[in-house]
Amino acid sequence: MIPAKETIEQAAERIKPYIHRTPVFSSQRINKLFDAEIFFKCENMQKAGAFKTRGATNAVFSLNDEEIKNGVITHSSGNHAQGLARAAMLRNTKAYIVMPEDSSKVKIEAVRSYGGIITFCQPTLDARESTLNEIKKRTDAVEIHPYNDYRIIAGQATAAKELFEQCLHLDIIMAPVGGGGLLSGTALSTHYFSPETKVIAAEPEEVNDAFLSFYSGNYESTVKGTTIADGLRTTLGSKTFPIIQQYVNQICTVSEKSIVDAMRLVWESTKLIIETSSAVPLAAIMEKKLEVKGQKIGIIITGGNVDLDNLPW
Amino acid sequence: MIPAKETIEQAAERIKPYIHRTPVFSSQRINKLFDAEIFFKCENMQKAGAFKTRGATNAVFSLNDEEIKNGVITHSSGNHAQGLARAAMLRNTKAYIVMPEDSSKVKIEAVRSYGGIITFCQPTLDARESTLNEIKKRTDAVEIHPYNDYRIIAGQATAAKELFEQCLHLDIIMAPVGGGGLLSGTALSTHYFSPETKVIAAEPEEVNDAFLSFYSGNYESTVKGTTIADGLRTTLGSKTFPIIQQYVNQICTVSEKSIVDAMRLVWESTKLIIETSSAVPLAAIMEKKLEVKGQKIGIIITGGNVDLDNLPW
Repeated sequence: MIPAKETIEQAAERIKPYIHRTPVFSSQRINKLFDAEIFFKCENMQKAGAFKTRGATNAVFSLNDEEIKNGVITHSSGNHAQGLARAAMLRNTKAYIVMPEDSSKVKIEAVRSYGGIITFCQPTLDARESTLNEIKKRTDAVEIHPYNDYRIIAGQATAAKELFEQCLHLDIIMAPVGGGGLLSGTALSTHYFSPETKVIAAEPEEVNDAFLSFYSGNYESTVKGTTIADGLRTTLGSKTFPIIQQYVNQICTVSEKSIVDAMRLVWESTKLIIETSSAVPLAAIMEKKLEVKGQKIGIIITGGNVDLDNLPW
Repeated sequence: MIPAKETIEQAAERIKPYIHRTPVFSSQRINKLFDAEIFFKCENMQKAGAFKTRGATNAVFSLNDEEIKNGVITHSSGNHAQGLARAAMLRNTKAYIVMPEDSSKVKIEAVRSYGGIITFCQPTLDARESTLNEIKKRTDAVEIHPYNDYRIIAGQATAAKELFEQCLHLDIIMAPVGGGGLLSGTALSTHYFSPETKVIAAEPEEVNDAFLSFYSGNYESTVKGTTIADGLRTTLGSKTFPIIQQYVNQICTVSEKSIVDAMRLVWESTKLIIETSSAVPLAAIMEKKLEVKGQKIGIIITGGNVDLDNLPW
């Protein structure tokens, strides 16, 4: 069932002991540049370096001791893997992580540091799913999908809930969209806790499945290309798409160049390390895909797990 | 006269409207690594990206309208230049900035963005001083030295004063040392506001003049080499050295490699962009130059103005 207001409130209470209430920062330089007030919700400073820790922690702590005794399993290009491995460690259970072999080194090392048991696979959805199913059969671990799971969605929703508490009367809230876990959670929290705020998503043009699905109404199950925003290479899920259709106001697409420019602007102006996916909403503002003049805008900075040996500039 | 307690309190009040009360962050990973509690005072998030904004703002706003009518002038490899240009802009006066020609691009651009009038010179102290004297004669601007000035020292002292308010009962406070403006201010604030806290400085081994002066008692006016910590290439001043002699407990030196390792550790663990100079105290901890086990340690992160096209790894 689509998470209710109370479900999100319960998720927030459940994960509270295990996560950071992340700070919100703004930059005078960026505000001047766009003639707007932009507030960055810094999930790059979240435990394990990304908002994904919220959903994973909520899912793991929603399970009882019997349900979780054989561990949890997922496939993830990175941040969900870290968040899940950490949550499993906190619950004293195993985390089996299927990662595409092109995952960034820093994310692989982080999963290992939380005791995650990694199996590498080809970087395709098919390979990820078949590898996962094989291990799941063998171990009887509980699958925690990175986004197509209401416990995950409710967990991710707590980031926007917090932002609304920290920053009143936002005109717009923005999040990037990949599988749609963060976006659907953000949209639900907006609907429940700040219904006057518009929800605007941003997606790399190269993987514009959410944009196409949203405006056609027909679920688009493939992506045409790839993007440097590695967290956004996935397609929407059966649980995230309907929420997005109902509660999101707009989805914009952006070029790869804008993503790099926006990322660099945030690094230089705020001194915060944000990953490529985090820069996608600001890229949409840079590309003038939405009207921001005089608006108060919250942007969820998804994470800060960057491979410092492979920066995109 | 060496700034009194009241002088530092007045400086804090004077600059308050123009600067940020910067946040303090810690990292569980770093704390575990060193079995200590380390608190980073984030002057990288200060206006103009460095603690130097404090001293420059205090100096500029200490002058009356008559004194400041012909502008201010300084030589600086970067952050003091930005801080001074910004303060002059806020006072509606001119800032003449003499910069070594090898200053980083990001710092040059920032000085320009605050309306600073830049003259480049050879990267030697002699060239800096002779160029400055020529312009000073021509313009009658007031010289604001980057560190050998009590108004500057009192301004820099406000960073430690704030940290003691934000973070009670520190066992140790650490700062890097170049010209000694930050260190002498930090030592004074510690003496006045947290006398039970030890002051420990860190300096690159390659430019260890402060270390030599401190332990021999004889002022060392030259440095033997150079360092990637470009803010620390200067020698102590006649006003900073006596304060450091009196109020600092220990000066450690560190290798260039440790500086890079410490910088990268902070970037990856805290998601904060800190410049090379900021990493020098943590480098001393990594090199076990001081006993940190179980200690509560504050480190002043000096700045975040990094040239992203020239990272040291």
